[in-house]
Amino acid sequence: MSGSTIGRLFKVTTWGESHGAAVGAVIDGCPAGLMLNETDIQKFLDRRKPGQNEFTTMRNEDDKIQIMSGIFDGITTGTPISLIVYNKDHHSADYSNIANCYRPGHADYTYDEKYGFRDYRGGGRSSGRETIGRVAAGAVAIKLLDQLGISFCTYTRSIGEYIIDYNNFDKDEIYKNALYMPDKVCAEKSSAYLKDIISDLDSIGSSVECIVSGMPTGIGEPVFDKLDALLAKAVMSIGAVKAVEIGDGISVSQACGSENNDSFIIDNGEVKKETNHSGGILGGISDGSDIILRASFKPTPSIYKEQKTITNDKEETVLSIKGRHDPIIAPRAAVVVESMCAITILDLLLQNATSTVDKLKNIYK
Amino acid sequence: MSGSTIGRLFKVTTWGESHGAAVGAVIDGCPAGLMLNETDIQKFLDRRKPGQNEFTTMRNEDDKIQIMSGIFDGITTGTPISLIVYNKDHHSADYSNIANCYRPGHADYTYDEKYGFRDYRGGGRSSGRETIGRVAAGAVAIKLLDQLGISFCTYTRSIGEYIIDYNNFDKDEIYKNALYMPDKVCAEKSSAYLKDIISDLDSIGSSVECIVSGMPTGIGEPVFDKLDALLAKAVMSIGAVKAVEIGDGISVSQACGSENNDSFIIDNGEVKKETNHSGGILGGISDGSDIILRASFKPTPSIYKEQKTITNDKEETVLSIKGRHDPIIAPRAAVVVESMCAITILDLLLQNATSTVDKLKNIYK
Amino acid sequence: MSGSTIGRLFKVTTWGESHGAAVGAVIDGCPAGLMLNETDIQKFLDRRKPGQNEFTTMRNEDDKIQIMSGIFDGITTGTPISLIVYNKDHHSADYSNIANCYRPGHADYTYDEKYGFRDYRGGGRSSGRETIGRVAAGAVAIKLLDQLGISFCTYTRSIGEYIIDYNNFDKDEIYKNALYMPDKVCAEKSSAYLKDIISDLDSIGSSVECIVSGMPTGIGEPVFDKLDALLAKAVMSIGAVKAVEIGDGISVSQACGSENNDSFIIDNGEVKKETNHSGGILGGISDGSDIILRASFKPTPSIYKEQKTITNDKEETVLSIKGRHDPIIAPRAAVVVESMCAITILDLLLQNATSTVDKLKNIYK
Amino acid sequence: MSGSTIGRLFKVTTWGESHGAAVGAVIDGCPAGLMLNETDIQKFLDRRKPGQNEFTTMRNEDDKIQIMSGIFDGITTGTPISLIVYNKDHHSADYSNIANCYRPGHADYTYDEKYGFRDYRGGGRSSGRETIGRVAAGAVAIKLLDQLGISFCTYTRSIGEYIIDYNNFDKDEIYKNALYMPDKVCAEKSSAYLKDIISDLDSIGSSVECIVSGMPTGIGEPVFDKLDALLAKAVMSIGAVKAVEIGDGISVSQACGSENNDSFIIDNGEVKKETNHSGGILGGISDGSDIILRASFKPTPSIYKEQKTITNDKEETVLSIKGRHDPIIAPRAAVVVESMCAITILDLLLQNATSTVDKLKNIYK
Repeated sequence: MSGSTIGRLFKVTTWGESHGAAVGAVIDGCPAGLMLNETDIQKFLDRRKPGQNEFTTMRNEDDKIQIMSGIFDGITTGTPISLIVYNKDHHSADYSNIANCYRPGHADYTYDEKYGFRDYRGGGRSSGRETIGRVAAGAVAIKLLDQLGISFCTYTRSIGEYIIDYNNFDKDEIYKNALYMPDKVCAEKSSAYLKDIISDLDSIGSSVECIVSGMPTGIGEPVFDKLDALLAKAVMSIGAVKAVEIGDGISVSQACGSENNDSFIIDNGEVKKETNHSGGILGGISDGSDIILRASFKPTPSIYKEQKTITNDKEETVLSIKGRHDPIIAPRAAVVVESMCAITILDLLLQNATSTVDKLKNIYK
Repeated sequence: MSGSTIGRLFKVTTWGESHGAAVGAVIDGCPAGLMLNETDIQKFLDRRKPGQNEFTTMRNEDDKIQIMSGIFDGITTGTPISLIVYNKDHHSADYSNIANCYRPGHADYTYDEKYGFRDYRGGGRSSGRETIGRVAAGAVAIKLLDQLGISFCTYTRSIGEYIIDYNNFDKDEIYKNALYMPDKVCAEKSSAYLKDIISDLDSIGSSVECIVSGMPTGIGEPVFDKLDALLAKAVMSIGAVKAVEIGDGISVSQACGSENNDSFIIDNGEVKKETNHSGGILGGISDGSDIILRASFKPTPSIYKEQKTITNDKEETVLSIKGRHDPIIAPRAAVVVESMCAITILDLLLQNATSTVDKLKNIYK
Repeated sequence: MSGSTIGRLFKVTTWGESHGAAVGAVIDGCPAGLMLNETDIQKFLDRRKPGQNEFTTMRNEDDKIQIMSGIFDGITTGTPISLIVYNKDHHSADYSNIANCYRPGHADYTYDEKYGFRDYRGGGRSSGRETIGRVAAGAVAIKLLDQLGISFCTYTRSIGEYIIDYNNFDKDEIYKNALYMPDKVCAEKSSAYLKDIISDLDSIGSSVECIVSGMPTGIGEPVFDKLDALLAKAVMSIGAVKAVEIGDGISVSQACGSENNDSFIIDNGEVKKETNHSGGILGGISDGSDIILRASFKPTPSIYKEQKTITNDKEETVLSIKGRHDPIIAPRAAVVVESMCAITILDLLLQNATSTVDKLKNIYK
Repeated sequence: MSGSTIGRLFKVTTWGESHGAAVGAVIDGCPAGLMLNETDIQKFLDRRKPGQNEFTTMRNEDDKIQIMSGIFDGITTGTPISLIVYNKDHHSADYSNIANCYRPGHADYTYDEKYGFRDYRGGGRSSGRETIGRVAAGAVAIKLLDQLGISFCTYTRSIGEYIIDYNNFDKDEIYKNALYMPDKVCAEKSSAYLKDIISDLDSIGSSVECIVSGMPTGIGEPVFDKLDALLAKAVMSIGAVKAVEIGDGISVSQACGSENNDSFIIDNGEVKKETNHSGGILGGISDGSDIILRASFKPTPSIYKEQKTITNDKEETVLSIKGRHDPIIAPRAAVVVESMCAITILDLLLQNATSTVDKLKNIYK
């Protein structure tokens, strides 16, 4: 029952339900001396905020972050950073119909089985609002990583069968369309397609890709805490993710070794790889090239179409879900994927700080 | 540098290098009262043993397990179970050529970058022999889970483009062919194909599927220690795995909600699902249906074809790897996937034991 | 930098500084189904509240607890319980004199050395207010343990040379005197003595004793997570504690084995011990008799007498501390000791729930 | 059931029973690049070896250490270091009398209560031999700390009422007498006294003191993982320890603030303290002065005198313990205390490596 903390040195604990008083996170282990204020965090929260456009739920939340501790004179002190977002718009909905039955594709049934009962208001802890704490903590990690030259590029890679064309890849486009896609053409086609999905009272699956640039080598702890293993855990822990791929991902299962191996070369005296099928990780340790990670999201389980299901009393029934729901998860989830990757990488970066006796002597000389 | 332990209550720590004196594992947290002997473990180790057939390395190791502690009168005492396999055949190989250069697709470069130098003999800690400890510990977890009615079926799902036909699925076939495939026809085609790969001095990718039956509901700890998140970590931590999928996996990214949602039904008074796209997990918690997990393995990075690479002194060179290597990873890795899933599930099963006050009162009444 | 979380299954994370917006705690891993409201927690916070009487600082805080998550319909849901106390009276003090110099006996110097700078307002994170989170979480643990028949009796055992006379021990007296002493006579003598200490502009040391009754046997995890080891950690982590004793404590160093060994006897068919020198713990595991723990507190480091010290710029200076401070720590710290013991015992109680295969089968049958 | 691992970055897992095949430890997280061989470890094991002299059990063990992994070309590789000591002389004893009854002061009863049965041979896991793994791992930590200028001085401080006279303190004397006392006179008196204890068929309590010199400032993680808190846990986890004191320890409970506060001064431009009542720790963080720790050991519970106890079948009986046992614990336990302090300090030293953003930038610049 205590799975709400992630990380060993950069430790993030999240708390809060969809319809409780607030949601939040506590970051323990952020190094002292980082300039940090609410704005640094708010801009990331705004990327996952509801009510952004026609494809996101109309729940009216401004999701304003408050920093409650760990900062003095605008700088992190090394003590826990407590972050809170108060829930505003959480009295509107009527949950009488989901209180008594199990929504297909949701965690209603499993929470009841595990805990004996559940907070059914908006999914309680299993609501998408749980990710606010992840993003708030991720924003802090991303700001710190940025000072070490590590940057993130995260976007919607596909919506249903519409996959971005890497020849059209335009990083600036990501924040210009409602779907956070780096391909203007694909974004337009996807938008049209989404409107059909909505009019069909249905939802559709999607995927997110995250590229991490500027990685130092040596990050990741063999054998169980490999960089790719912990990235997989962090990203798979996001609701609705059903697959995580590193580098070439599942396509490696059909590749030959002679194709898949990345040759090492010397480029202007620097070690480089001719290709990056490995997605920047060898033996669970960063090799200095870009980290490439993909996450596949299932379609939003809340749909308007009538669905067969059962009641809490174990009787079959038919359910049609009310209220407004995103028809797709990826666009608002991209920043969550980015946050989870950042939290994981920073934690492993801290752990790697004492990998050799020489490093240790430099610190304590 | 301390990533060699996995689990919170059922804790497994592995140690050992390919060419050290031995490899081993320590299990801490195995409940007392489990009948256990070397044979229980040996039969799992034999599934990953080298030299089984024409598709596995000829390294001559019998990999005999020894239990060093934690057992009294043939029963686990609740204290740490120390397991050791001595390395036998570890003086044959000549590593002069890999001592001074970085093998593409291997961890040679990243270990040097992280630790300043490496044990280059057979890959040291990054060798496939590291998985012996995983399998030895997994065998203990599997035996305990079996007493709770939880069983595993793990097999090679694909080799290159040859994917099993589920209409031909025959569980008994798995142990009848050298590739551990549940489809006789596919196994034969794959064998022929593998011989071509070998004659091409190349290697090929593959995938493994693991089905867990008899799962109780309620297993998995929201939000970061979800069952699927920890399975993803455990399986992605196996060398050469580049993707982990749960249930429908990446195909959910193209599915509609109305297809992907599994309807709950009542079957003979029991809660069931009409379908199992979710792979037995909802909201990170087991829903009682089969757990379905897939892992994609990259092709064996050690190939005989000449490859471009660099030396430790950062000079470009050409490498051709000597010795005998498996042209494919899945068959011997299937039992490793099964072991990692079992270790993860048992650990979460223990954690779930006190999810409610009522359970706690029953234990301490 | 991430030492603000304690526990493995019942996990408590505290946050907050003396003069930040608030202090708080997040409990992750509280079993579902515990009736819990603010009043349950408030009564424990009131035992450590400032401004109670002539011997406590006049800082004017009502320390009202707010539960932000983890409760639905008045019952714990199994999800994280977030607890907050807003700081009210935190603008009064003038810290100009301690901002630039290191108070003897305080953490000013060590925080600067560790983090490069510090939040000097009221000691920041090293303030006594940090214990609010401990007590809030402890109150939850104590309520749950009470339902299992485990109860606590914690009191001031000594103030300076005034030690309670166990012949006068009166449990009801504890809450009748300002010093939380179970001996009326000793409390009166101590009060008179304390007034002298105050008029001397000085402070004095003290000790707290905690008795835990109703313990089940078998609690504690050999070898490093023994019950006494984790109690020692939990209690020594309270500011100003310099010694922790279990049972006969330091006096065992002068005892003979024939005196110190507790003989087992059968009393009305129940296993009992003739004596309890061991303080209820054998081999790090509870033996069913009362747990006895003592903590020695140093005198309050903040005194009015002039003291030699140095400035941040490493120049010698003389400091006289302003403001009102408790002349003694034990009375308000007793509830903190009780809280830390409860958190530790509950966590180990949860861990012990699966110590045998038979227990596990009972849970999952 | 998984308390056999200690540490977060420098992780030590011990295993083994008194009469199993072997005892051992796995160190995970030792930085790469430390020269290490068996001799470095053996000299520490020899300090706790049985059969050293007339005051130690005659069990005939040479306790030869073997390094099984983690070393290449005589240098640590950063991978787990597996250490094993085979049990030699473990068939001699006759345990028929303790198999069926509970020895007072031992863990026989509590292990049965926790695990349902126990390995009664020589106490199984609760035997003193369990400390071999602690000392083997401690030796590695001490060697690494030595390279950072941190050194340990650990000795028997008292035996019964015989306490060393600090005016006679002679560090060289520690290894000259069988009792590891730094005071020749006290050692002689104690020896004579011990012979009386032995002829009385009894045992006696004792205490150990450990001084750590050369500590950097800033070591220790507020609030629960304070240096003193983790030292208390580590040392209290040693069998027979019933009290842990830091600095002035329990005597602070009778001291005034004006006496107990250590004034900061400048000595040759360096920050120093006029006194060291705090034992080198302020607010749970090292202040740069010597760490001073004391542990009180109860008398050996195994005595020859007849004792009242009960059988496994809960019937009262009388027990007289056979075989040879140490009449006192401190002398052989001193190196165990030193080892636990070293393991704890090294782990916190590694954690402190990234306490500030500036440190992090230096590492990854």
